Amino acid sequence: MIRFTLLTALLLPAMLYAQNASYLQDSATIRSIYDQALTQSQAYENLTELCTDIGPRLSGSQGAEKAVDWAAQKLRDMGCDSVWLQPVMVPHWERGAPESGRVILSDGSTTDLPLCALGGSVGTPKEGIRAQVVEVFNFEELEKLGREGLQGKIVLYNRPMEPRLVSTFEAYSGCVNQRGSGAKTAAPFGAVAVLVRSMNLRMDDLPHTGTQSYEKDGRKIPAAAISTNAAAALSRALRTDPNLEVELHMHCQNFEDAQSYNVIGQITGAVHPEKVMVVGGHLDSWDLGQGAHDDGAGVVQSMEVLRAFIKAGIRPQHTLRCVLFMNEENGAKGAREYARVVEETGEFHVLALESDRGGFTPRGFTVDADHPGSGKFLNGLRAWESLFSPYGIHYLEHGFSGVDVSFLKRDKGPLLMGLVPDSQRYFDYHHAKNDRIEAVNKRELELGAAAMVSLIYLVDKSEYLELVPPSGKY
Amino acid sequence: MIRFTLLTALLLPAMLYAQNASYLQDSATIRSIYDQALTQSQAYENLTELCTDIGPRLSGSQGAEKAVDWAAQKLRDMGCDSVWLQPVMVPHWERGAPESGRVILSDGSTTDLPLCALGGSVGTPKEGIRAQVVEVFNFEELEKLGREGLQGKIVLYNRPMEPRLVSTFEAYSGCVNQRGSGAKTAAPFGAVAVLVRSMNLRMDDLPHTGTQSYEKDGRKIPAAAISTNAAAALSRALRTDPNLEVELHMHCQNFEDAQSYNVIGQITGAVHPEKVMVVGGHLDSWDLGQGAHDDGAGVVQSMEVLRAFIKAGIRPQHTLRCVLFMNEENGAKGAREYARVVEETGEFHVLALESDRGGFTPRGFTVDADHPGSGKFLNGLRAWESLFSPYGIHYLEHGFSGVDVSFLKRDKGPLLMGLVPDSQRYFDYHHAKNDRIEAVNKRELELGAAAMVSLIYLVDKSEYLELVPPSGKY
Repeated sequence: MIRFTLLTALLLPAMLYAQNASYLQDSATIRSIYDQALTQSQAYENLTELCTDIGPRLSGSQGAEKAVDWAAQKLRDMGCDSVWLQPVMVPHWERGAPESGRVILSDGSTTDLPLCALGGSVGTPKEGIRAQVVEVFNFEELEKLGREGLQGKIVLYNRPMEPRLVSTFEAYSGCVNQRGSGAKTAAPFGAVAVLVRSMNLRMDDLPHTGTQSYEKDGRKIPAAAISTNAAAALSRALRTDPNLEVELHMHCQNFEDAQSYNVIGQITGAVHPEKVMVVGGHLDSWDLGQGAHDDGAGVVQSMEVLRAFIKAGIRPQHTLRCVLFMNEENGAKGAREYARVVEETGEFHVLALESDRGGFTPRGFTVDADHPGSGKFLNGLRAWESLFSPYGIHYLEHGFSGVDVSFLKRDKGPLLMGLVPDSQRYFDYHHAKNDRIEAVNKRELELGAAAMVSLIYLVDKSEYLELVPPSGKY
Repeated sequence: MIRFTLLTALLLPAMLYAQNASYLQDSATIRSIYDQALTQSQAYENLTELCTDIGPRLSGSQGAEKAVDWAAQKLRDMGCDSVWLQPVMVPHWERGAPESGRVILSDGSTTDLPLCALGGSVGTPKEGIRAQVVEVFNFEELEKLGREGLQGKIVLYNRPMEPRLVSTFEAYSGCVNQRGSGAKTAAPFGAVAVLVRSMNLRMDDLPHTGTQSYEKDGRKIPAAAISTNAAAALSRALRTDPNLEVELHMHCQNFEDAQSYNVIGQITGAVHPEKVMVVGGHLDSWDLGQGAHDDGAGVVQSMEVLRAFIKAGIRPQHTLRCVLFMNEENGAKGAREYARVVEETGEFHVLALESDRGGFTPRGFTVDADHPGSGKFLNGLRAWESLFSPYGIHYLEHGFSGVDVSFLKRDKGPLLMGLVPDSQRYFDYHHAKNDRIEAVNKRELELGAAAMVSLIYLVDKSEYLELVPPSGKY
């Protein structure tokens, strides 16, 4: 009977709400939000501009600076109350001339090994690096192999993403240390370079880049990704020819930090102008592809939230701010700077909603906050389930909400939320050259924007934001 | 309080079930079903064979006959207790040499008008058809225009799919009469041909075919589809140049009905061998593309349900039958024949589950049955929601379950069910030349198969199938 009572208690708010007249009004408003999103959204048109007129926009690149200007102009054109650039210094890394690699078998025959440098990697010496390859699946194996097993060798990290996990982001989490820390973990054992199996569940021929970092005073060895097919082929080849060698040529380089900006547009709240709701994604992208899903989708969806309020002539009760973060991909300097300024000025943030999991059909939202209000908020969200379910939004759970908003997390801080789209295809494109506008379905993108607008509409006029404690210089 | 009591009554089975030990066992079994599906499924490999080794397989074509042999062999190889072919005569229509069309403006300038004949259409005379064009959006407009407005004209049906509907299948339902009945509705007014805007929510350049029918003794005029972009362009051109003409050349032809087969594989039930559960999809496809989503996906997923039981060494309590229907696309002769034989022999069918909405991420199931047991069954399904929700299955509603299983519908007949995948991209590919293996994501396909296996596993050992009345020669 305990179970029964608890369940009843949890459902009571939903049941009362469903009997409330405001339910019908909310239901009609959300229907009109979706109608607008599916017929008059600018999300796909904006994404097409961002992807094709600007293209890749790695921090410190010309593309990134063009994206800053483009985004600021878009926010001005849509009629935000204010638009500003928040300066931030960002890493500046360049891939340089195309990389190349080849496998040299013991019999002297060679095959090409297409690869891409990982972000932040040093290049190879001019003559390249040629060495034997040791395949490992985790860092513990490095310990066992020790310096004698690894000295002078190229390490191949070949642990695949776990296909049994339904959430591909969980599978990514279980693998990405190979990419992020592979070089700095192998370097102390005398390895001369690392190759990493791309973070991709699909077997294909595309290498996927991504950030990696070195120990500040450690040896810096080149790090590159190879495709899942190439990793499988190299692994097979090693079984029959353990003495084969790989030769790498990489021309990437790190430069001085560059000046860049977060782009911010705002509608001032009608009732609580001092309380800020953030919606955001990141403006930078990797240099391969066009950053369509990662995170052009989140950028245009976040812009669309403000545009929907402006177009409908509805002023939100709380200040609504679109923050397009710079440098999520290799440093999160934009998000850090945004959070630092919030802390410094004591700005009162009540909510931060991030979209950075691709422009796929939305399935729900995560809530990530520790203070007592967050549990109540999640239950409140679930009371809205019948409003959301006609649009396929069912997933409402505690969980990580995104890299950029995570820097706003405090004991008494804002409610952090993340849009959760279907994740099955995300890593087919993630950080690879096929992350292009063609990979985005217009309706899926629009449905994501509509879900975000609907959520902000409901949250803005709910009591939940008043649960966030006024933490001053929090 | 009425609402409260009802809700409690509805939830009670779920609550009791969740406290039951069998819940944990079911949860573990479903986890292992998904593990198998995501690591050892043959669904994608089979679909690749069906799409690339066989390709298009319109009823009456060589491709269809090859698909029959291929599917029967697959079912034999996986170890079904019995595999048989059920003979059925099917329509035989051929597109013939590629169609062509062009728009001739009043000033004599011309542009190509890419098109595809609709299935079942007659061809044009050898010299083609050239006529002025009248654009309409529904059949009522034909009535208004009458013979004087339509005599000797080509009718352009240009009502778009309704983008505001979240379910694209609903949008399709609201449009498809233009394709299916456009020619026979326009012919009595003296129209000489019809062009139909493709059933596609996306603006692109691909014409989508599909079936259409004539009145038995009516005038038969050619019917073709043009792409959404072409329909929009032709509509614009008509506004400035209402006297423009279109010229069509189509070489399609109807032949005598051909011999074909439904392909059936079966595992005999351990407890109720006389009670049959059907899982199925359709083996035929349109002649453009490879029929990957429509309905290669449903074919390989249905096969996978039997394979999962055989591989796990679990004999179902009820007889489990995979039925691969022939001729869903243009006549449903296979489904009609299957239902006729069931009726004739008095075979006791308790469940029929169809997959024919593409190989996209599964979202849930529809239940389509009228007898009192079906409501109880739907509530029972919802009691399993916590078993399904970790896999993103939330949609459990009354609704149409598929063309092929619909012929089994009787007052006291089996529970009809349909797999409901995400529908946003389905009509990007439906009946068009891009419905190819490349359009199918391996994991999305596998998740659909896993959802079907899980459902059959739960239903087979539940009490719900015993609710289906033993209707003898039902």
